[in-house]
Amino acid sequence: MSAPVSRRARPAKAPLSREVIVETGLRILDREGLSALTMRRVAQDLDTGAASLYVYVANRDDLMAAMLDHVLGTVPDPPGGGWRERLDALVEAAVAVMSKHEGLALVALGAIPTSPNALALIERLLAVLDEGGLDARTKAWAVDLLYLYITAQAAEQSAYNVKGGDEQDTVAAAQRTFDELPAERYPMIVGLGAEMLAGGDAREAWALRVLINGILATPAG
Amino acid sequence: MSAPVSRRARPAKAPLSREVIVETGLRILDREGLSALTMRRVAQDLDTGAASLYVYVANRDDLMAAMLDHVLGTVPDPPGGGWRERLDALVEAAVAVMSKHEGLALVALGAIPTSPNALALIERLLAVLDEGGLDARTKAWAVDLLYLYITAQAAEQSAYNVKGGDEQDTVAAAQRTFDELPAERYPMIVGLGAEMLAGGDAREAWALRVLINGILATPAG
Repeated sequence: MSAPVSRRARPAKAPLSREVIVETGLRILDREGLSALTMRRVAQDLDTGAASLYVYVANRDDLMAAMLDHVLGTVPDPPGGGWRERLDALVEAAVAVMSKHEGLALVALGAIPTSPNALALIERLLAVLDEGGLDARTKAWAVDLLYLYITAQAAEQSAYNVKGGDEQDTVAAAQRTFDELPAERYPMIVGLGAEMLAGGDAREAWALRVLINGILATPAG
Repeated sequence: MSAPVSRRARPAKAPLSREVIVETGLRILDREGLSALTMRRVAQDLDTGAASLYVYVANRDDLMAAMLDHVLGTVPDPPGGGWRERLDALVEAAVAVMSKHEGLALVALGAIPTSPNALALIERLLAVLDEGGLDARTKAWAVDLLYLYITAQAAEQSAYNVKGGDEQDTVAAAQRTFDELPAERYPMIVGLGAEMLAGGDAREAWALRVLINGILATPAG
């Protein structure tokens, strides 16, 4: 049995707050993964009982939503340049930030963004689209499509990160599957050969160019 | 205690197979939701032990992947028309099929499609893109982007379906949040007013037009 420690000698507990709970949740998520993230585990890390957390956070879904919002508040401002360069930079930064934390992109996918920092990101995207001279409806629909793209791209990258394996290994394994496909059944895929999976990061830059070119070519109004 | 029933009087058990297990899994998923889908529950429905399933299916993830592949085999052929109409119809049909079953779109998101029916869908998309006269690299990158769009759109619609609430109610609730935003902090969103969330299904048709217009305007080669 360890020697008793005076209350005064122990470090003071940090006061509980939604912010402290969110930061603790993110630390657990990033170190131990999504399956380790439970209300009980967060409470344990904060040296309190799970019941104390419910004053600040309704449940695990609410915690995940708050973690997503916190993370979206860290998307950096684009360094400068024309509106298209800044739009590219903003979308890429949002994908990077969201994909760093397992499961958060999936929280964003399938929910209309209504939390403060999600709306702040939407606002920033709209401001850049506005510089592109789009009409009101096209801006509204474009920001929706860009946000869907950000969450989907982040979910995909996050899935790679979680599997832990190298992205190149995954691609190489898929290429081996493609190489063995029967040409009678899959003539197009077989015909494209290594082109099917080549390109790496250039594919993502291209996909974003496609979206912006498509938005400019397709007024919704 | 119930009266004993002769072996002969009981209906014969259907022979186990991967196909039967997949169909049983889909029935449980669609009736009772993703959380009810366990290997034990599937085994129970098939009047056998979970251990018997592992001959045909490696684990729950493998079962989900097989269920996704089964579902992708049911995407109908487009009714006809020009290549763009058929591409639209094929993408919309794939979204509809994938979004009907909770969680399956998320299985697709973040994995390179390598199962037979996923590849068959990729092959059909490529064949239509080929009619559009795209070069090899653009076809390869475009099919990747279209598949990402299909899975993201399906994941989003599936999330609406699961929440059970009317999509219109969800949109109305979000609109009320938007209506109360401070204009100083969110000038663009407030300025767009009802336009932010208006449009319904027309938004999805527009998003697909954006993708195809963007692909045509952005050769990757």
